Amino acid sequence: MKPLLPLPDEITLLSQHACHAGVQRFYQHASKEIGLPMRFSVYLPPQALAGATCPAVFYLAGLTCTEETFMIKGGAQAVAAREGIILITPDTSPRNTNIPGDSDSWDFGVAAGFYLDATETPWSQHYRMHSYIVHELRNILLDHLPMDRQQVGIMGHSMGGHGALVLALRHPEYFHSVSAFAPIAAPTQCPWGNKAFSGYLGSDTTSWRAYDATQLMLNQRQAPFPKGILIDQGLDDKFLAEQLHPDQFAAACQQIQQPLNLRYHAGYDHGYYFITSFIEEHLLHHKQQLTA
Amino acid sequence: MKPLLPLPDEITLLSQHACHAGVQRFYQHASKEIGLPMRFSVYLPPQALAGATCPAVFYLAGLTCTEETFMIKGGAQAVAAREGIILITPDTSPRNTNIPGDSDSWDFGVAAGFYLDATETPWSQHYRMHSYIVHELRNILLDHLPMDRQQVGIMGHSMGGHGALVLALRHPEYFHSVSAFAPIAAPTQCPWGNKAFSGYLGSDTTSWRAYDATQLMLNQRQAPFPKGILIDQGLDDKFLAEQLHPDQFAAACQQIQQPLNLRYHAGYDHGYYFITSFIEEHLLHHKQQLTA
Repeated sequence: MKPLLPLPDEITLLSQHACHAGVQRFYQHASKEIGLPMRFSVYLPPQALAGATCPAVFYLAGLTCTEETFMIKGGAQAVAAREGIILITPDTSPRNTNIPGDSDSWDFGVAAGFYLDATETPWSQHYRMHSYIVHELRNILLDHLPMDRQQVGIMGHSMGGHGALVLALRHPEYFHSVSAFAPIAAPTQCPWGNKAFSGYLGSDTTSWRAYDATQLMLNQRQAPFPKGILIDQGLDDKFLAEQLHPDQFAAACQQIQQPLNLRYHAGYDHGYYFITSFIEEHLLHHKQQLTA
Repeated sequence: MKPLLPLPDEITLLSQHACHAGVQRFYQHASKEIGLPMRFSVYLPPQALAGATCPAVFYLAGLTCTEETFMIKGGAQAVAAREGIILITPDTSPRNTNIPGDSDSWDFGVAAGFYLDATETPWSQHYRMHSYIVHELRNILLDHLPMDRQQVGIMGHSMGGHGALVLALRHPEYFHSVSAFAPIAAPTQCPWGNKAFSGYLGSDTTSWRAYDATQLMLNQRQAPFPKGILIDQGLDDKFLAEQLHPDQFAAACQQIQQPLNLRYHAGYDHGYYFITSFIEEHLLHHKQQLTA
């Protein structure tokens, strides 16, 4: 095992595991944005351990997940090792906030941070996943991992697909490629989004649009990702009809002339057996766009 | 999704998930050997769904695992789909036996069946994982899946590596290729094995030898697997020194002239990040031996 790459003292390495000749690491640090300890995971491919600067892809996970889920279930490291891609997964919400009832729902509160900055009390104090990922975590990693700030992509699943699309559309200067698995593509138009945005952002629905990928796309003056966005969606996904609405995002892309590859797959459901089936094509999508 | 392959009515399909153009299935059935419901998982590659007969590999999991663990964490379906291999994983013990204290230890009782037929009460009534896998489950699957009874391999991890080696050495007529990750290779010589064998088999240690891979190898008159056995072992595995003893199994293979590829890997530990790193080579080992 190669020595650790230097990270600031306030970042604790919780565990590391050799994997596909690279290393899978789990970290904890005291987040200033969140105001609490936060965990994240990093996969460094062998090329990074050997000293190369590598393209990096953030993966944002879905409801109920943690920074571990994708690294355990995604089967991504085999591809990342071969292609020389750094993988990064933050947690899905703050933890241990002491907000009463924050664990009562599986789709709101703990593990359901929706990658936004809450404005409603009591959530606004800690639920700042948007600023945490875009600014704090991204900058820590850029400063201390063998990453190029011009070669950073973002992807995600379900709530994390929403997060990936939103973060990319709001910050195309920071995220240079984007893809999603079964994203909540129009959260202002579905029950999950309505519940989350009501709770975190309040009743003024105009404020919700800043976190709705379809609305954000409709507000573009030209295609923000001219090389194209990739979205995979299973047709046996039980959440497709009510919660996801990739068709609305597709219509917005059409209107803005944003190249999009939206693939509907017969037989596939909402889980990680679906994600792992297409993870290779997503990582190749990112590598191609980040290194072209 | 293709229609189900016919299985007997007493076998219940609990769930299925499209995966790499094949299908991941989880079943439950009323096991006669165990005397209780048992779960198992099957991955059918696209070739099997298209009607081809495929080589099949049993995977036996380790302590604390279930029939799900390998299918979630192993990353094996990507390779199995490409190579046309059926994957099968039984559970690691009976469940819900009502034996007092059966869940008190993580290394004995529930999820720690050690792939043997217990002879000591109260374990002997239900803890019959050896006969269950070798006879009952194997025959059910041979009768109802597109398998060839001459193309069945077996592999496993830790306790399941022990199980794979023991089942293969006791039944080379049923299992035609074998490999293991970090197996408990000489269980009569380690604390895990002593605890399990004392409890399940009693104090007469001569009875233990029938479930010790190293002892079984030493009893061979000639190499039972002339094409070779593959074992991968991480050198950062915290259980290596006290529990696993692959060197003793290697010495037995040398004495019997059994071809062995025992690979020690720097930096790798005992977990699934290790297994997924080498699963492709294990599946290719089995396919090559089963279809040559």
